[in-house]
Amino acid sequence: MTERPAAPAALPQPPALDTDPHAPGDLAAFKNAFRRHAAGVAVVTALDTEGRPVGFTATSLASMSAVPPLATFNMAKSASSWPAISETDRVVIHLLGLRNRTLAERLAGPNTERFVGDHWRVGPYGLPVLNNVTSWMVGRIVERVTVHNAAVVVVQVEGGGLGHDDEALIYHERHYRALGETL
Amino acid sequence: MTERPAAPAALPQPPALDTDPHAPGDLAAFKNAFRRHAAGVAVVTALDTEGRPVGFTATSLASMSAVPPLATFNMAKSASSWPAISETDRVVIHLLGLRNRTLAERLAGPNTERFVGDHWRVGPYGLPVLNNVTSWMVGRIVERVTVHNAAVVVVQVEGGGLGHDDEALIYHERHYRALGETL
Repeated sequence: MTERPAAPAALPQPPALDTDPHAPGDLAAFKNAFRRHAAGVAVVTALDTEGRPVGFTATSLASMSAVPPLATFNMAKSASSWPAISETDRVVIHLLGLRNRTLAERLAGPNTERFVGDHWRVGPYGLPVLNNVTSWMVGRIVERVTVHNAAVVVVQVEGGGLGHDDEALIYHERHYRALGETL
Repeated sequence: MTERPAAPAALPQPPALDTDPHAPGDLAAFKNAFRRHAAGVAVVTALDTEGRPVGFTATSLASMSAVPPLATFNMAKSASSWPAISETDRVVIHLLGLRNRTLAERLAGPNTERFVGDHWRVGPYGLPVLNNVTSWMVGRIVERVTVHNAAVVVVQVEGGGLGHDDEALIYHERHYRALGETL
């Protein structure tokens, strides 16, 4: 039979990080793993309490269930959009294609410039909907769970729209990537 | 000024699904969007209350914060691993590379066959650790949030290990894919 140690003393230590050899083991393991993780790119938009558009590029979008249709995304409570997301009822979640790479960069750039331009329109509930994305969903926030300085937001999808199809835009190791070979 | 309708009557209707033209609008929007979403592939493992290994392939792994190191994954409460995940303290989250495609399929296959073989070993806390993955993290479950028939699980990473590097394994439209061009 295998013994199950109660303490973490037996944890193998991951190799030190190139960038920070003094990082603690837990942070090193986390960074090493997510450095090898790739994710589809989404943009979440909402309105703040004064009706101004806010939004951000997210690589944490995930499906949670189909019936009812639920999706999740994660964000830092230090993010410029958090005050709006923490107060509002509804968000729009956009899926990005290769042609939306500039859009992804803009919605990850200086927050005062994210909605300067004609790359968005007013959609359901007055929410900002980004133009020319491959698809978008509007939904109601049904849970916000904060842990330390971050939050998981659960959204129940109510509707949405489709744009022209495109290859999915991927983010990996601080670079935008296309999809490659089908295995 | 833009009016903000309070009711969802103004929602644009997405095109009907090819596979189910009678699907409700919310489900169609959800399916249309996630059909265009690509995700990195992970495997979550744990021990059930009798000490037997359980696990499943997940495309919902997301980073939540780095300090402290937090990650999330989503699962259905109908999943064979849910009783174990709902009771246990700790999980192992593995990141998969292209060479792990068979492993991804095995951990998504019949649950009685997922740990038959020599593709795993006993790791920290007696937890099952899959061999030859690109990286893995062991962590403590700090939140389980259930909404309808699904759950978000928040894990605080405590340690982990690195395997040989490999291209990240991606899942998109029911196919495993490699990464392509850097944009």
